[in-house]
Amino acid sequence: MDRAQAHTWLTTAIEEARLGLDEGGIPIGAALYGADGTLLGRGHNRRVQDGDPSLHAETAAFRAAGRQRSYRGTTMVTTLSPCWYCSGLVRQFGISRVVIGEAVTFHGGHDWLAEHGVEIVLLDDAECAALMRDFIAAHPALWNEDIGVN
Amino acid sequence: MDRAQAHTWLTTAIEEARLGLDEGGIPIGAALYGADGTLLGRGHNRRVQDGDPSLHAETAAFRAAGRQRSYRGTTMVTTLSPCWYCSGLVRQFGISRVVIGEAVTFHGGHDWLAEHGVEIVLLDDAECAALMRDFIAAHPALWNEDIGVN
Repeated sequence: MDRAQAHTWLTTAIEEARLGLDEGGIPIGAALYGADGTLLGRGHNRRVQDGDPSLHAETAAFRAAGRQRSYRGTTMVTTLSPCWYCSGLVRQFGISRVVIGEAVTFHGGHDWLAEHGVEIVLLDDAECAALMRDFIAAHPALWNEDIGVN
Repeated sequence: MDRAQAHTWLTTAIEEARLGLDEGGIPIGAALYGADGTLLGRGHNRRVQDGDPSLHAETAAFRAAGRQRSYRGTTMVTTLSPCWYCSGLVRQFGISRVVIGEAVTFHGGHDWLAEHGVEIVLLDDAECAALMRDFIAAHPALWNEDIGVN
């Protein structure tokens, strides 16, 4: 896809990440765009805010989009490389493309998704990386909890 | 693990699947047990009931368990082989074991989990299989929507 378009869509995910940060949460945001470019759903990690470990940014955006008959042609945009949980979501539902803000602070399952035919657009966004780097430095235990490291 | 114990735990997941069926939903249930055998959370697929595609049985049980510092030693019990989304959940959070009612009507990611060190206890439960077989025959489109087939 066009990288300028990817960057534009990423701004929605970054807005979500910043909303999460302002709420005292983990600053990861995501948005699901339809094949025609319509925004279907957006959301951010809600572990802290709702005490809900199932709401990663990608699953929050997926949930916000509601029931869809097909995910063909859709794009999941996320500020951070998707973990196995969120990568599994993408693979199971046939989401066609993932736009990733950065994969420096955390490297999830996007290589596996690429092997299984998902288009991966990996941006090297400094703002996304700074958000996570600062958060991890300040709250290492919370971050580890969110990715199941202990 | 002891298979009699696995069958006992499976009854909780089957109860959840039947609750879902009674609500007009997809009859898949799950339960998360702690390392000491405590029931941490239980739930069932809520796509129809809540219009929420993110709540598969396993993610519902995981959510119901709330935040946990570690999933080491925990067991996810599910009436049906976990899809990629739910398999990704198990891998990311380090859930140690998955007890599966049946993998005949749907074969998800449990072989992949076994390759990555998760203990898989595959029961060949006739009740679980009958629940899904009847449901899929009656509602094929809804089932396909739930697993992203279109």
